[in-house]
Amino acid sequence: MTQTAVIALGGNAILRPGQSGTLAEQVTNIRTACRQIAEIVGLGYRVVLTHGNGPQVGHLLLQNEAAREQVPPMPLDVLGAQTQGQLGYLLQRELQKALREQGQPGHVVALVTQVEVDPADPAWHCPSKPVGPFYTKAQARALLAADCGPLQEDAGRGWRRVVASPPPLRIVELAAIQSLVRSGATVIACGGGGVPVTAGPNGWEGAEAVIDKDLVAQRLATDLAADLLVILTDVPRVYLHYGTPHQQGLDTVTADEAQAYLAEGWFPPGSMRTKMAGAIGFVAAGGGRAVITSLEAAVAGVAGLAGTQIRR
Amino acid sequence: MTQTAVIALGGNAILRPGQSGTLAEQVTNIRTACRQIAEIVGLGYRVVLTHGNGPQVGHLLLQNEAAREQVPPMPLDVLGAQTQGQLGYLLQRELQKALREQGQPGHVVALVTQVEVDPADPAWHCPSKPVGPFYTKAQARALLAADCGPLQEDAGRGWRRVVASPPPLRIVELAAIQSLVRSGATVIACGGGGVPVTAGPNGWEGAEAVIDKDLVAQRLATDLAADLLVILTDVPRVYLHYGTPHQQGLDTVTADEAQAYLAEGWFPPGSMRTKMAGAIGFVAAGGGRAVITSLEAAVAGVAGLAGTQIRR
Repeated sequence: MTQTAVIALGGNAILRPGQSGTLAEQVTNIRTACRQIAEIVGLGYRVVLTHGNGPQVGHLLLQNEAAREQVPPMPLDVLGAQTQGQLGYLLQRELQKALREQGQPGHVVALVTQVEVDPADPAWHCPSKPVGPFYTKAQARALLAADCGPLQEDAGRGWRRVVASPPPLRIVELAAIQSLVRSGATVIACGGGGVPVTAGPNGWEGAEAVIDKDLVAQRLATDLAADLLVILTDVPRVYLHYGTPHQQGLDTVTADEAQAYLAEGWFPPGSMRTKMAGAIGFVAAGGGRAVITSLEAAVAGVAGLAGTQIRR
Repeated sequence: MTQTAVIALGGNAILRPGQSGTLAEQVTNIRTACRQIAEIVGLGYRVVLTHGNGPQVGHLLLQNEAAREQVPPMPLDVLGAQTQGQLGYLLQRELQKALREQGQPGHVVALVTQVEVDPADPAWHCPSKPVGPFYTKAQARALLAADCGPLQEDAGRGWRRVVASPPPLRIVELAAIQSLVRSGATVIACGGGGVPVTAGPNGWEGAEAVIDKDLVAQRLATDLAADLLVILTDVPRVYLHYGTPHQQGLDTVTADEAQAYLAEGWFPPGSMRTKMAGAIGFVAAGGGRAVITSLEAAVAGVAGLAGTQIRR
């Protein structure tokens, strides 16, 4: 029986740090990623792909600010939806191409996806997710004066907007994703962590937040009863003592062992912590196996030969 | 047996001429449209909704230009995909709400959709579709100097970019749309006429064009073997002698009669002509019935009681 894999692709895999963000750069990066993903389809998996959008939403924020005298700026939920369109298009186009190159049949489709968050979540009281470009202190002051939301100094690199990042509760379009996966399609969904919405008396309302894409990937993998969750990042595996002479890569760990490392504070926030939390959450909820690895090692990671494997 | 209706919503129904384009304005307009569409679902139709994106893509073009020193501008195919994300999100959110208000079950989902055009089509030699903002003659000169593509004077209102508008050949994600319609979903697809792509040796490549949304709606309705094509516009019906003292509304016409009016040149280009061509094309290809009417008269038009009805 065909197995299902949910793959989470980092936003940096699409627009690398230091790149200016031309379409040609993004398409080249997306092609590289799609060849790996097509190989995973070739291993016999039904793939549901989700992706980050940090650099892209940063560009839209800059464009909104630059044109704010001419065009009313849009809030983060709408900008996130714009990146779902942009990246959904490029990923579906290039993934179709990569599948064809590898002689794979089947079609690819990207869905606009809303993800419900809890308006009473404590995360709303401490905005923590940096979004968009870096500002000087003077620019940051001007933005604060223009009521552009909270800003924070980010690790000596300048000031950035910060927004709340509440955990994902529910994928609104789950039934459509399930239906398309059953039909044999490769599905792209929940881009950028999904468009954040809260439940109102009559339906959904947009929320000014960014949902963590790895936690959404976990939610998606659990709700689809997937066999495998693959979280792709910049490093080939998870490390203890990362970046020190004692650096020690993790090969295979149980969810309990991984949870113990997490509780001991081995992984700094905003980095490997939510990836580990996502992997553990998926396995703890009954998922078969989670892998955290680099894009380059993705196929080997799916085969169990690379990356950090989290098992029951 | 449930009937299928393809509904084409004009971009002006989402952002009205004279409005500045705040999110609040767009959401208010979208709510109004979605209440009508939910009523059509309530009549027992499975609905596939497509929509224009003229004002929204115009705003993205302005934002791209305003920030071009900081963020590499994106071409029209990518901007079109961004509007599919933005409007797909808002339409699916508000249509879910409208359905719930009217006690309708079912879910709504928006797909990123590519539409194939022919790279050898003669339309590429005569760019004719105005896109984006109006410029003064001086601005137009500067844009031409910066190689921003052809511009044309638009009916005394200023200069605008013009792009090619080749006819739609094929909806790339048709199988996914069919699968979702069969599953009972209300589907939003082919927004802004679809993301234009041409067939390369290995797959699709983006094209710098705008496909007419009403012609794509016809393609979609024909390919889905829909029972009804509804084209919504600013006026309650199609007229002969439009805007003169002899103005005469058309109630019910056969496709042959409509074709004769079209051939006689009754409808100016860029206005009612492609709507009539889309309606005629659908009925001529075996479709049951096409209706051209205003958003306000949509429900009555579907019931056969308003608008211009085009029948076999």
